[in-house]
Amino acid sequence: MTSTLDNLALSPEAQDLLFREARTANAFTADPVTDEELREVYELIKWGPTSMNNQPLRVVFVRSDEAKARLLPHMGEGNRAKTGTAPVVAILAADTDFHEHFAKTFPHFPGAKDAFADDTRRTEAAKLNALLQAGYFIVGVRAAGLAAGPMTGFDAEGVRQEFFAGTEQLPLVVVNIGHPDHSATFPRNPRLDFEEAVRVL
Amino acid sequence: MTSTLDNLALSPEAQDLLFREARTANAFTADPVTDEELREVYELIKWGPTSMNNQPLRVVFVRSDEAKARLLPHMGEGNRAKTGTAPVVAILAADTDFHEHFAKTFPHFPGAKDAFADDTRRTEAAKLNALLQAGYFIVGVRAAGLAAGPMTGFDAEGVRQEFFAGTEQLPLVVVNIGHPDHSATFPRNPRLDFEEAVRVL
Repeated sequence: MTSTLDNLALSPEAQDLLFREARTANAFTADPVTDEELREVYELIKWGPTSMNNQPLRVVFVRSDEAKARLLPHMGEGNRAKTGTAPVVAILAADTDFHEHFAKTFPHFPGAKDAFADDTRRTEAAKLNALLQAGYFIVGVRAAGLAAGPMTGFDAEGVRQEFFAGTEQLPLVVVNIGHPDHSATFPRNPRLDFEEAVRVL
Repeated sequence: MTSTLDNLALSPEAQDLLFREARTANAFTADPVTDEELREVYELIKWGPTSMNNQPLRVVFVRSDEAKARLLPHMGEGNRAKTGTAPVVAILAADTDFHEHFAKTFPHFPGAKDAFADDTRRTEAAKLNALLQAGYFIVGVRAAGLAAGPMTGFDAEGVRQEFFAGTEQLPLVVVNIGHPDHSATFPRNPRLDFEEAVRVL
């Protein structure tokens, strides 16, 4: 696809890889996804910005048949088959105990932990920042040359009990990851025009 | 910065531009940000995936002195000075009326609008997906060769009344945009290790 975005610093090839030609995958080939690829997705996207560097995103990569069997019953019916065929599935969660890491992540401000003593405020901050990081993560999967299939259609409480018992982590988005079988990719749906989504004041 | 991420399809230069060398800016040079750059950020990131293609992100680019004067009183004290020096400030909001656009954005499923009749469910979906898109937006600002300074320290209700009265749009994140004055950039804070943030099952 030819770029017409001449004012961007990012190369047209990278624009295509991350945004224009990347598509949500509904089926996957048998090509494997390596542990090195998964690690490098994290090592890239960990640098994305969060409020006070709070980094609440937690990732569970579901790869084994056993772990897959624990996840599938909690997926929405329309998402179960494609999740079953994905080589790897990432559960993206928000850790509401992120403030326990501030000594490492925000060392110049000893009062950071106390600033998040309130549970409600901390939960909101965890969700907001983990979702920003989920956006970086989806871009990062594509940066690895893989297709991402993000889904919100699942039983969040069921997934929480199954994979996050004993933690303060809340699952937010589930992402199928693999090499796409494009024969199952839907025609691309229209995006809102600049004038529909943006105002310049 | 040399890349050691050999398994990614994205070039090391693009990895640096979007993640490794990009930094949250606390001050900006006088170099202008053009309207074409702002438009191309949107034209790139609009392709990022959302649930049922619902695209709830709405952007208000605050550029004029008049608009800046309306915004600054609602920013947190620690964010006011740097927001004042940014050539452009983006208010990122979630449109809880996103379902009104489904005839355009999800045309093959006429029941999409009714599936979001419930206000609570719609508000949650709007926030979640707008925050994923906010993650794409921050990457997109960097793709334009600009620095992004995302902030959550502002009076959301005040900003809502000032800029979103008469709409169903909720401001979530404010992002300073410009060419960074690196003399004001803080030393980079540590990120969580792979083992601290990720499990592979």
